[in-house]
Amino acid sequence: MSIIKVAIIGCGTIANAAHIKAYLNNPNAEIKYFCDIIKEKADKAVRDSGCGEAIEDYRIILNDPEIVAVSICTPNHVHAAISIECLRAGKNVLCEKPAARTYAEALVMQKAQHETGLVLNIGVVNRFNTGVNLIKKMITNGELGELYHVYVSFRSQRSIPGLGGTFTTKSIAGGGALIDWGVHFLDIVMYCSGDPLPKTVSGQTYSKLGLDMPNYSYLNMWAGPPNYSGTYDVDDFVTAMIRTEGPTITLNGAWAQNIGVDEMYIDFLGDKAGIRLQYGKEFKVYGAKDGVLLETTPSFKSVDMFQNEIDAFLDCIRTGEKLPSHIDTVILSSQIIQGIYDSSDLNREIAF
Amino acid sequence: MSIIKVAIIGCGTIANAAHIKAYLNNPNAEIKYFCDIIKEKADKAVRDSGCGEAIEDYRIILNDPEIVAVSICTPNHVHAAISIECLRAGKNVLCEKPAARTYAEALVMQKAQHETGLVLNIGVVNRFNTGVNLIKKMITNGELGELYHVYVSFRSQRSIPGLGGTFTTKSIAGGGALIDWGVHFLDIVMYCSGDPLPKTVSGQTYSKLGLDMPNYSYLNMWAGPPNYSGTYDVDDFVTAMIRTEGPTITLNGAWAQNIGVDEMYIDFLGDKAGIRLQYGKEFKVYGAKDGVLLETTPSFKSVDMFQNEIDAFLDCIRTGEKLPSHIDTVILSSQIIQGIYDSSDLNREIAF
Amino acid sequence: MSIIKVAIIGCGTIANAAHIKAYLNNPNAEIKYFCDIIKEKADKAVRDSGCGEAIEDYRIILNDPEIVAVSICTPNHVHAAISIECLRAGKNVLCEKPAARTYAEALVMQKAQHETGLVLNIGVVNRFNTGVNLIKKMITNGELGELYHVYVSFRSQRSIPGLGGTFTTKSIAGGGALIDWGVHFLDIVMYCSGDPLPKTVSGQTYSKLGLDMPNYSYLNMWAGPPNYSGTYDVDDFVTAMIRTEGPTITLNGAWAQNIGVDEMYIDFLGDKAGIRLQYGKEFKVYGAKDGVLLETTPSFKSVDMFQNEIDAFLDCIRTGEKLPSHIDTVILSSQIIQGIYDSSDLNREIAF
Amino acid sequence: MSIIKVAIIGCGTIANAAHIKAYLNNPNAEIKYFCDIIKEKADKAVRDSGCGEAIEDYRIILNDPEIVAVSICTPNHVHAAISIECLRAGKNVLCEKPAARTYAEALVMQKAQHETGLVLNIGVVNRFNTGVNLIKKMITNGELGELYHVYVSFRSQRSIPGLGGTFTTKSIAGGGALIDWGVHFLDIVMYCSGDPLPKTVSGQTYSKLGLDMPNYSYLNMWAGPPNYSGTYDVDDFVTAMIRTEGPTITLNGAWAQNIGVDEMYIDFLGDKAGIRLQYGKEFKVYGAKDGVLLETTPSFKSVDMFQNEIDAFLDCIRTGEKLPSHIDTVILSSQIIQGIYDSSDLNREIAF
Repeated sequence: MSIIKVAIIGCGTIANAAHIKAYLNNPNAEIKYFCDIIKEKADKAVRDSGCGEAIEDYRIILNDPEIVAVSICTPNHVHAAISIECLRAGKNVLCEKPAARTYAEALVMQKAQHETGLVLNIGVVNRFNTGVNLIKKMITNGELGELYHVYVSFRSQRSIPGLGGTFTTKSIAGGGALIDWGVHFLDIVMYCSGDPLPKTVSGQTYSKLGLDMPNYSYLNMWAGPPNYSGTYDVDDFVTAMIRTEGPTITLNGAWAQNIGVDEMYIDFLGDKAGIRLQYGKEFKVYGAKDGVLLETTPSFKSVDMFQNEIDAFLDCIRTGEKLPSHIDTVILSSQIIQGIYDSSDLNREIAF
Repeated sequence: MSIIKVAIIGCGTIANAAHIKAYLNNPNAEIKYFCDIIKEKADKAVRDSGCGEAIEDYRIILNDPEIVAVSICTPNHVHAAISIECLRAGKNVLCEKPAARTYAEALVMQKAQHETGLVLNIGVVNRFNTGVNLIKKMITNGELGELYHVYVSFRSQRSIPGLGGTFTTKSIAGGGALIDWGVHFLDIVMYCSGDPLPKTVSGQTYSKLGLDMPNYSYLNMWAGPPNYSGTYDVDDFVTAMIRTEGPTITLNGAWAQNIGVDEMYIDFLGDKAGIRLQYGKEFKVYGAKDGVLLETTPSFKSVDMFQNEIDAFLDCIRTGEKLPSHIDTVILSSQIIQGIYDSSDLNREIAF
Repeated sequence: MSIIKVAIIGCGTIANAAHIKAYLNNPNAEIKYFCDIIKEKADKAVRDSGCGEAIEDYRIILNDPEIVAVSICTPNHVHAAISIECLRAGKNVLCEKPAARTYAEALVMQKAQHETGLVLNIGVVNRFNTGVNLIKKMITNGELGELYHVYVSFRSQRSIPGLGGTFTTKSIAGGGALIDWGVHFLDIVMYCSGDPLPKTVSGQTYSKLGLDMPNYSYLNMWAGPPNYSGTYDVDDFVTAMIRTEGPTITLNGAWAQNIGVDEMYIDFLGDKAGIRLQYGKEFKVYGAKDGVLLETTPSFKSVDMFQNEIDAFLDCIRTGEKLPSHIDTVILSSQIIQGIYDSSDLNREIAF
Repeated sequence: MSIIKVAIIGCGTIANAAHIKAYLNNPNAEIKYFCDIIKEKADKAVRDSGCGEAIEDYRIILNDPEIVAVSICTPNHVHAAISIECLRAGKNVLCEKPAARTYAEALVMQKAQHETGLVLNIGVVNRFNTGVNLIKKMITNGELGELYHVYVSFRSQRSIPGLGGTFTTKSIAGGGALIDWGVHFLDIVMYCSGDPLPKTVSGQTYSKLGLDMPNYSYLNMWAGPPNYSGTYDVDDFVTAMIRTEGPTITLNGAWAQNIGVDEMYIDFLGDKAGIRLQYGKEFKVYGAKDGVLLETTPSFKSVDMFQNEIDAFLDCIRTGEKLPSHIDTVILSSQIIQGIYDSSDLNREIAF
């Protein structure tokens, strides 16, 4: 089989922790370019990987006919623009989540995919997680009976990332806790329940605990340290209720809140059985049989979901298979997230 | 001080466990009548109390000029009718929660109160709970900063009461988990946050786990045992989002669900501090000061809230004081609960 | 149905906590005599029950033709003698566990049962426990595959009962931790695994921690307080290995040991699945399916096992049904326990 | 001091993780040969160590008069043969555990040691463990009083190593869980209790969970991956009871079992105090004083036990000191393990 030449655009945390490693492990891929506007980051990636060339300008990639696949690992505000340019230049794209800052941007990306026919997958990596797929299978097989409601909790006491940086600047990130964490949780719900069309969304977002930056108390900060001269104009709390063609969904999410318990889970409520999934961890199944209530904890071998994602991306370029992470599917959570932000601005429910 | 003569209408669980005991403890009250359409219940109450007369027909009470105060402890479907008749007959009324099966019924009750000027309080007993009042005081004093969101969880794995009986028959109870449990939780939220006017309600109720009565698996049943030839047409799960003039409120409630943890709590989220109240138990305050996150658990002497409620009812008859359990205040949760049921029927948000 | 007249011989803890209550709840039974050599105990039982006559001499029972059923709740050393006299006098007998102090005594009891044809059941009450029966059913149905080994742990740091009293005097009790606690654990194992015939027994018992009575440190003492002028000549630790026609069984038991954890459980090891039963509490099932390891915790309604036991005893007198607690079945654990004591004396394995 | 020239025979996991590293750290030793029948393993060891010569044929070592000490790190089936050849060639030997596949093989090794007078130590490395030596000292000092029983648990839910490989092939390994894990646990017991002579052994071994290799569910596999065309004919569960001149010992061991808890510990029961040692981790001492029950957890600096073992081996070649890991001591556990396997085959107790 011929080797697929790959380029990485954006050499930050997610590129290094996930994409690059997975491409290096795949025998059919070779990374040719590491691109970052901060040249040192690209240089370091080349050194660590022992292959490829460090570049600052991604247009080199667009113009290199050898490049077949591109991973876009930049901040959110250039996801759409770069994805579209890559597609138009004939490249297959795996773009990190969220697809874009807004639903409108995501729609333009989808249009470019439809017009070029090339691959445009989004980094909704939980669709390649072993446990999530076990849950999806159980729901599809009817083991939960009718799935009527899903409750989503992604609440942390103190987890605002990089206060004053790209994560907390709306023009760059598109939003806060909802777009950064909520996108993963919502995506798991949509995937497991069969990607049902949304019907109404009512939501409210709040920008509270990070607003007075100097007085934000925290124990540690991922994507930190704080930049007190930066911007903080994103949501650190969100609540919403969504009606779909399938189950209703309610959610509470917090990058930060004055409640001292971290509750990161999804409850799938079916009339035969239910599941609580601890995000990124194990899940429990609750059912009943012959008057006996049963609580079951499965344990299973997990394959690295990022490796699965990259392997599937490379394969689908060859086979033409439409993956569950295709923009056509992921566009729905983009629509829902936009709906929550709009509903919050309008203080009323949005109907689609 | 002269003794207030009291009548009890409905001699079931709540009358025996709460009202009667409290009247007996109050030196200024005397129970003259115990009324129940099941005569044995009234007889037993007389025996247990060592006072009063057992009667079947509550119109005896209406016609007895000695009676000043009435506790209405019947099933929900006759709350409105009997309260109104009592008021029109010149009696002061303490009516058990919920005020009525529907908002419309509650409005008629309120009208009768306004026209007679007599007392009409509802049994929202948590307004007389020591811990709840501590929380209300902290919020009023600004100790939580701006209270922007409240999350309410009243979820149990298996707690449908008296399957097939009055609790699960809509024409009698008016509803299920929402009206029976939710009314208490919502009332605490409303009380602590200053009874803010509701603006929008979006909700969905489900009747799932009790529907197939013979196959409902449970470990024990309060207000049981099941009557398999009875009716089950009420909600056993509810989810909702409410916008008010104050905080937004979201809730999940379950008399029964296939998730094996009982979560009965209210989260008050303020921008300075937050509180998680375990329903009927202790609460924790979460704040931060000088970079240190603080978790505080207050302990305090609790006075029996039912005793408080009855004492205050008897006092306000004399003093004319308007209690926080007055129909004028409680009518708001009645409106919200109606809004949730209506929203669920219409599959869209209701604006007030 | 005619009422069965019952006599209770021995009005100590087990009679009051279990037998008497259960007979009173059974509509087809009436307790005529409460017998105890300490008259006050019999008197108190009469007062508490509101029925029957208090007597000191059990021969009154033997001579009363109205008495059909007898519960023997005396110390162990008179189990055999009184059971046999009752059977010879035409009474049906439920004798508390252990059947007797020794296997030889138990065999004589069994002989009397065979000769009279009357009921002789032993109080192996776990055979009427809901959870134990669920486990038995799973094993019988093959859900565990081949059950090859059972490990039994009844180990407590400090639980010697009534130091210096009847429990710790060999001539009265027949033994210590093994005969008092082990009999229940072994009985569950035998019942669930189909009462397999034992083949070899190797065991060792120790009388250590209670031996120096004045220096025995403990936190509380059931059947206490200590009588330092009494006798302590029974086992407080036992270990054994048993081969049967079914699984092998190993056990460690301690009324007292210098290991500070209480481990009271039975592990059933099958080649398809296994079960850990926490004695008197819940159990967990461990299995595997399609490469996934599964841990399942059932919850279920439990009926009072003593009530079940008494109800079944009364029924079987009428129907002639042979219960799983019949002396013919229970004799096997008596044989095993004797084997352990003998093996310990001989310092070698016993083969049957 | 002159440098001792060393040869390593067998360059697998234990050689690399323990022996080689320790020799390199000892200033008085120099590794001259790395021998493995798989040449690449020897080559890699040379590269990693930066010294010595890679060879395939261990007879080169026998014939090199410079070599004074040999570490034998091969699979079990050639332990005896190579040890004996080394001794006969005038080399001092440290042979990995177990001494041999069978007691008979071990006896021949011992005979060769006696005839040559050279060192033959076995890799019972826990005898050089800091915590184990603390326990031994406490027992020897009488701090536990009389040590009357030891219970040994080495039970894992899923830990069969290299299914279908050398570990699970009896002709190579000599056995499974008992000989591979049990040898370490038993050795600790023997060492701490003064290497008492065994008197009787009754045991049973089972080959259950690995037998149907394709359907063996597991989460990860050490010494893996599985070779489904290989052999599985060893024990994955063992239970046994041992009488000695000192305490009785009972054990349960599982490489795999359908009980979902890993319990790896040794309980030393004395009449004054007891100890639970978590294998490879901390231990707790349980005692009592003046009516108070005491639980003590010692913490201490640990020296690498493999380094201790190698240092002591090199020293004893010079000093002639007889180490606690001498074949004369270790032969006892070999006898016990053989006894368990024989007892299992014969379905009865073995007396020595």
